[in-house]
Amino acid sequence: MVQERNKGAEKRERILQSAIKVFARKGFYNTRVSEIARTAGVADGTIYLYFKNKDDILISLFNDRIGKLNDEMERQLAALDSPSEKVKRIVSIQLGLLRGHKDLAEVITINLRQSNRFLKQYAAPGFNRYLDIIAAVIQEGQQSGDFRQDVSPRVAACSLFGALDGLSLTWVLGTRDADRLARAGQQVSHIFIEGLRAPETTGT
Amino acid sequence: MVQERNKGAEKRERILQSAIKVFARKGFYNTRVSEIARTAGVADGTIYLYFKNKDDILISLFNDRIGKLNDEMERQLAALDSPSEKVKRIVSIQLGLLRGHKDLAEVITINLRQSNRFLKQYAAPGFNRYLDIIAAVIQEGQQSGDFRQDVSPRVAACSLFGALDGLSLTWVLGTRDADRLARAGQQVSHIFIEGLRAPETTGT
Repeated sequence: MVQERNKGAEKRERILQSAIKVFARKGFYNTRVSEIARTAGVADGTIYLYFKNKDDILISLFNDRIGKLNDEMERQLAALDSPSEKVKRIVSIQLGLLRGHKDLAEVITINLRQSNRFLKQYAAPGFNRYLDIIAAVIQEGQQSGDFRQDVSPRVAACSLFGALDGLSLTWVLGTRDADRLARAGQQVSHIFIEGLRAPETTGT
Repeated sequence: MVQERNKGAEKRERILQSAIKVFARKGFYNTRVSEIARTAGVADGTIYLYFKNKDDILISLFNDRIGKLNDEMERQLAALDSPSEKVKRIVSIQLGLLRGHKDLAEVITINLRQSNRFLKQYAAPGFNRYLDIIAAVIQEGQQSGDFRQDVSPRVAACSLFGALDGLSLTWVLGTRDADRLARAGQQVSHIFIEGLRAPETTGT
């Protein structure tokens, strides 16, 4: 029974992995469920044992992956002390996605924008939790006196997410040089840490 | 003859205006050319006098509008002296798009992400010029000694664009309160201006 469940989970995961590849290559709208099945090496009908339709695959993929990302982010941030170090870690985790999971990053970024309806109905909880985790770091920095008080943690979180997203977007179109992306990440960390720094601690 | 040309330009513009509305409501993939025609009050065949197909409408729309935005941005920035004022103006122009031209902003933002192929082949020149205009402001600030030298103008430009884009994305999903967006814009300006400030001028 447990074995059956594991087998099911393994197959579901294989379908999701294949969906990432096919969505990234062809785009969501141009993908057919039968192509995902072929890539996963399962029969078309098998897909429907796990997912209602193509939309459901995308939604499951998004929620599953952003959930894991959020868990990982919380785990890593909890191990750090200073708000500046935490900002640097957020930057390296978000940009790191591009290197380690390029297809997934593309699916998440593109599909976040696919439609406001999609984002509002399905992606919002996971995406909001992501922003909340960043906002909590900013707020913590404000409480410790490291960061200035006159910035909304949520605005700073959206801006930092967006800055990294903008960088990712232009990076995938450019040389895709990993060192270059790492240097860019350091510069963005720097802009945000200095830009958020409380006046009394400036220059220290 | 001139009148004929004006009439043509007027009709082309009407088709583009209608396309913005329909794309924003239904998404690019779900839009039919016949719906754009109906909204514009022209026959289906008329569309094909001006555009090859639906892709061509989107590409024309994007290039036409981002071209105008770039011109307007250059005009307004040329009238300002200080790099900080210029950064503030870039912020208010990009966020202002959401208020004055919400549908257009949605079409541009979403379609920039629709596919890397689209972005690479067609949108890149206009989008790159937009980033170049911002990067030139950063570089100017570095030359005048206002901004630190250890940040790539291009990285700062992508980050600022992205930060505003991230803010726009979350704003359209939220309360859509114009005052709130303006305040958020001021905070982002602040983060970037302080984050970019050259060390020797810190605190002045």
